[in-house]
Amino acid sequence: MKTDAPTSNASKDQIEIRELIDAWSRALCAKNLDGIMAGYANDVVVFEATPPHQLKGIEARKISWERCLPHFPDSMESQRRELEIKVIGDAAVAHCFHRVVGTGPDAETQHTWLRVTICYQRIDGKWMVIHEHVSVPFDPQTSMAAFIQEP
Amino acid sequence: MKTDAPTSNASKDQIEIRELIDAWSRALCAKNLDGIMAGYANDVVVFEATPPHQLKGIEARKISWERCLPHFPDSMESQRRELEIKVIGDAAVAHCFHRVVGTGPDAETQHTWLRVTICYQRIDGKWMVIHEHVSVPFDPQTSMAAFIQEP
Repeated sequence: MKTDAPTSNASKDQIEIRELIDAWSRALCAKNLDGIMAGYANDVVVFEATPPHQLKGIEARKISWERCLPHFPDSMESQRRELEIKVIGDAAVAHCFHRVVGTGPDAETQHTWLRVTICYQRIDGKWMVIHEHVSVPFDPQTSMAAFIQEP
Repeated sequence: MKTDAPTSNASKDQIEIRELIDAWSRALCAKNLDGIMAGYANDVVVFEATPPHQLKGIEARKISWERCLPHFPDSMESQRRELEIKVIGDAAVAHCFHRVVGTGPDAETQHTWLRVTICYQRIDGKWMVIHEHVSVPFDPQTSMAAFIQEP
């Protein structure tokens, strides 16, 4: 896991959310499905980078991760850039660039960073993900994904 | 402008945000740049559907709209589906599917709905857009944009 250092004036809530994001990255690299799913609210709505274009509810999100995990490298690192977390009372919005890099001897070159938006609500004292949006832009001339080499 | 009917138990804040979204759609269809820009916070960060992959700040957002508007049809309708607005104190998260449809005699067939996430903060009593994320998914096999025919 590799993320830009937090700013020195980060609030307690920002630090807490940052820790949740870091824990999520560790769970992803360990392919620990329970850890990956731990922070999602039951009624989360997700726009993922790849089809289907919408996932509604925690079960759909879980099935999507189950299908997706076998396609990740055996050994990998989760990297983030420009992570910004804004806390507004019991809500928070985080956005960043994220990518997974294979670290094994047979690791392929990564194609793209992904743009990630995560919206949180504090429910019973716990920050839960109520909405997530992950994407790359597309080139309107060619209809190809416009992969992000450097954010 | 054409949007699903609001639910009957929508709160005052939800109705207010919905009206802002409707006003934005009217401004877009009128190619009224000031109207389009009216709701953005100064430090808004935007992930748009097409490159560049990030717009930071209201000036970058404005330049992007200026470049983009001439590519829209002369006469058009802004359509939304599955608009959901969650208000959490002085924050709100809206997400939906959006598309623009040409209504003139030379209107081309539209290719895709876009997934839209809009994050708001109430600043000095006014709902402002602090983050926006617009996208379509991409097909990982072909690297082509996976356009959304029906959300």
